[in-house]
Amino acid sequence: MMQPVPGGITAPLGFRAAGVACGIKAEGLDLALLTSDGPASAAGVFTTNRAVAAPVLVSRRHLDRSGGIASAVVVNSGCANACTGARGLAAAERMGRDTAAALGCAPERVLVASTGVIGVALDIDRVARGITAAVRRLGPDGADAARAIMTTDREPKSWAVDVESPAGGFRVGGMAKGAGMIEPNLATMLAFLTTDARVAPALLRRALVEAVRDTFNAITVDGEQSTNDSVLALAGGASGVDVDASAYPAFVAGLAEVSRRLALAIVRGAEGATKVVTVRAGGAVSEAEARQAARAIANSLLVKTALHGGDPNWGRLIAVAGRAGVAFRLESAAVRIGPVTLFSDGRPYDERAPAAADHLRGDAIELFVDLGTGGEGEAVIWTCDLSAEYVRINAEYRT
Amino acid sequence: MMQPVPGGITAPLGFRAAGVACGIKAEGLDLALLTSDGPASAAGVFTTNRAVAAPVLVSRRHLDRSGGIASAVVVNSGCANACTGARGLAAAERMGRDTAAALGCAPERVLVASTGVIGVALDIDRVARGITAAVRRLGPDGADAARAIMTTDREPKSWAVDVESPAGGFRVGGMAKGAGMIEPNLATMLAFLTTDARVAPALLRRALVEAVRDTFNAITVDGEQSTNDSVLALAGGASGVDVDASAYPAFVAGLAEVSRRLALAIVRGAEGATKVVTVRAGGAVSEAEARQAARAIANSLLVKTALHGGDPNWGRLIAVAGRAGVAFRLESAAVRIGPVTLFSDGRPYDERAPAAADHLRGDAIELFVDLGTGGEGEAVIWTCDLSAEYVRINAEYRT
Repeated sequence: MMQPVPGGITAPLGFRAAGVACGIKAEGLDLALLTSDGPASAAGVFTTNRAVAAPVLVSRRHLDRSGGIASAVVVNSGCANACTGARGLAAAERMGRDTAAALGCAPERVLVASTGVIGVALDIDRVARGITAAVRRLGPDGADAARAIMTTDREPKSWAVDVESPAGGFRVGGMAKGAGMIEPNLATMLAFLTTDARVAPALLRRALVEAVRDTFNAITVDGEQSTNDSVLALAGGASGVDVDASAYPAFVAGLAEVSRRLALAIVRGAEGATKVVTVRAGGAVSEAEARQAARAIANSLLVKTALHGGDPNWGRLIAVAGRAGVAFRLESAAVRIGPVTLFSDGRPYDERAPAAADHLRGDAIELFVDLGTGGEGEAVIWTCDLSAEYVRINAEYRT
Repeated sequence: MMQPVPGGITAPLGFRAAGVACGIKAEGLDLALLTSDGPASAAGVFTTNRAVAAPVLVSRRHLDRSGGIASAVVVNSGCANACTGARGLAAAERMGRDTAAALGCAPERVLVASTGVIGVALDIDRVARGITAAVRRLGPDGADAARAIMTTDREPKSWAVDVESPAGGFRVGGMAKGAGMIEPNLATMLAFLTTDARVAPALLRRALVEAVRDTFNAITVDGEQSTNDSVLALAGGASGVDVDASAYPAFVAGLAEVSRRLALAIVRGAEGATKVVTVRAGGAVSEAEARQAARAIANSLLVKTALHGGDPNWGRLIAVAGRAGVAFRLESAAVRIGPVTLFSDGRPYDERAPAAADHLRGDAIELFVDLGTGGEGEAVIWTCDLSAEYVRINAEYRT
C-alpha cells in the first residue's frame, strides 16, 4: 500500500537539500544540492546518446569507483556542459571535488548533473561559489532544489510516497525536470529519487532499472534524447527498514510510483502541450514490438497534430502502426479512441466519430491500437499533443 | 549528357495522358489516365507499410501476372481506398478492369493507384464514368494528368529530360504528387515515370530501384510512410533505342534525374515548408549508417524547428547524431551549416554563428555532420523545415 506525502526529495528521512542562484542562468535558482546524512547506496541510469555530456561521464565513473555509494548530488541548470571537450570534463570533475571538500567526503561520493545549453563552457567559478552557498543552506525543505534544476519547465516537479511493506514502512521521494529534449536549445530529462529504506547498491540499481522502464523510459515528447539525461537514486537507510525479498516488490512499486508521477508531470508540462496522451498497443507478438509500435504512434507528427486538433483520425494510427516495423495484420487490427472503437475486423465505424471527438476534447487522451497478430504483447507510452506553440518556442529561441 | 525538355510524362514518344473530374474530390480534376501506344515494360516500387492499400495490392499482382508488361496506369485522387477491406479490393480491381475494357487490353496490363482519405469507400461508379471520359480525352499533353493526381499539393510536379547514350538518344518523363504523408488525412507519394527507351522488364525494375534509392527514398517531410506510396515506370520503346550495357548508365541517370527533380519538388511543396534542406552525413562506418544518421537529423523536430527559426543550433545536430543508433565519436565529429564549420575537434566555434545564420536565411540549406568514425560512409537526405503552418494544417483539417 502506498500513500502520497508532501516533501518531495526530502520526504524520506536523512536527506537535506538546497537550491541557490549562482549566476549561470540570467535569473533564478540554478544550483541544487542534495545530501544524505550518512553514506547512501546509489544507482543511476543515463542517456544512451553517444554524444554523452561531461557530468554523465563523471557520475558514471564515481558510481564505479565508490561501488555504488554516494553522499551528495550536485546539479546546475543553464549550461549542459556537453560538447565541451577536456575543459568541460575538468569542470564537471571540479564540481564534484568542490562539493566533496565542502561536505568532507571523498570526491567519488558526489554525483554530478547539468542541464542547459549545449556547447557552452561551464563557468566553474560561479558553480564553486554556488556550492559554498548551497552547503550553508542545506535543510529539510526540497522545494528550492526542485526549482533550481528547472530550465524552461513551467513548474517544479516533486512527489513522495509512504510505502508499507512486510518488512516495515519507508518513504520514496523525488524531483525531476524537462522531458527528453523538449527545451529550445536546452536539454535533458533529469530525475533524482531518494528513499530511507536500506538497500544494497546492486539491488537498488536493479530496482531503479525496473522502475524506470515503464515510467521515465515510457514517455516521449519529441522523440529526442539528450546528451545529459540522468536518473539518480539514493537510498540512505534512515528508516531502518531493510529491503529484503519480502519488501522488494513494495520498494520497486514505490520507486515506480514516484517515477510515474514525475514522468507524467514532465509530459503534462511539455512545451506547447495541451493534452496528456496514453498510447497503448496490444495484440503484438511481443512486449518489445508493442512498445515499438506505441512509441512510433506517440512520436508521429500526424497523430500528435490530429490530437491537438481534436480530430478522431484513426487512419493515421493504422498507417503509423503499419510502418512501425513490427508484425501487423490489417484484417484483424483495431483502433480505439477513448472507449470508442473506430476500426475493427477490416471495417471503419465512421458514424462513431462524434463520440471519439468528444473524448478528444478532454485533456487526458487514451489511444489503443490492436496490431492484429493475435499475440499477447502489450505496452504503454505516454506523450503529449503537438501544437503550433511547440514550433514557435523551438523555432524562435535565440532569435 | 542530359537536357531538360517540356512535356513531363508525355515528353517521351508513344505515351498519351488525360486528367478529368469525376466527382471524388469536391472540386477539380481527380482522375488521371496514362497510356502507352504499345505494350510497355513496366516496373514498380511500393510502400513497405504493412497496412497496404488495395490499389497497391492490385498493381503488384498485375505486374506479377503480366510479367512486367503494362499498357496503362489509372489514378484517382481524393480517396486512398486504404483500410477498406474486401470491398476496397474489389473496387481497385474494377478500376483496372474498366480501364482495360475501354482500352481493349488485358486487365493485368493496367496499373492502379489512389491517393486521398484513408478508410473511406471509393465511389467506383464515379471512377467508371471518369475512366470513360478520360479515354475520350487522351492526348499528347500530360498537364491535366499531373493536376488530377494532386491532393493538397500546391502545384503540379512534372519533369522530363532528353538523354544521350552510346546506344542513341531517348527521353525520360515523369509526374508526382505528395511526400510521405505530408497531407492532412490524405496520404501518399505517387510518382509515374515514362521513357521511350526500349528496356526489358527486369532491367527496368533494376534501374528503377537504383534511381529511386537516392531520390524518392532520400526525401522525408515528417518521417511518415503512407499506405499507398507507389513509384511506377513504363518503358514503351518508341525511340527505337535499346538500353544495352553501354546505355544502361545513361538510362539510370535519366530516371534518377527526373526522380530527383520530382522528389525535390515534393519537399519544396510540403505543407508549411519554407526551406529545402540537404542533410549530408559523412565519416560513417558505412553508407547505411550515414543514411540512418542523415535521416534521423532530417526527421528531428528540434532540427527542423531550429532551421525554420534560422537558428544555427549545431548542438541539436550533434545530439541527434549521437542518438541515431550509429557509430559516433564526439572527439572527432564535426558540424557544418552551409560553408561554416561550427564544431570540430571537440570544440565549438560560436564566433562563426552569424555567418551560419546568414546561410540559414536562404531557402536552400546545406547541413553536414561528420560522425567522426574515420569511415568513408556518406549519404544525403532531403527534407524541409517545420513551421507552425504545418501543425495548423494537420491539426485543423476536418475541424
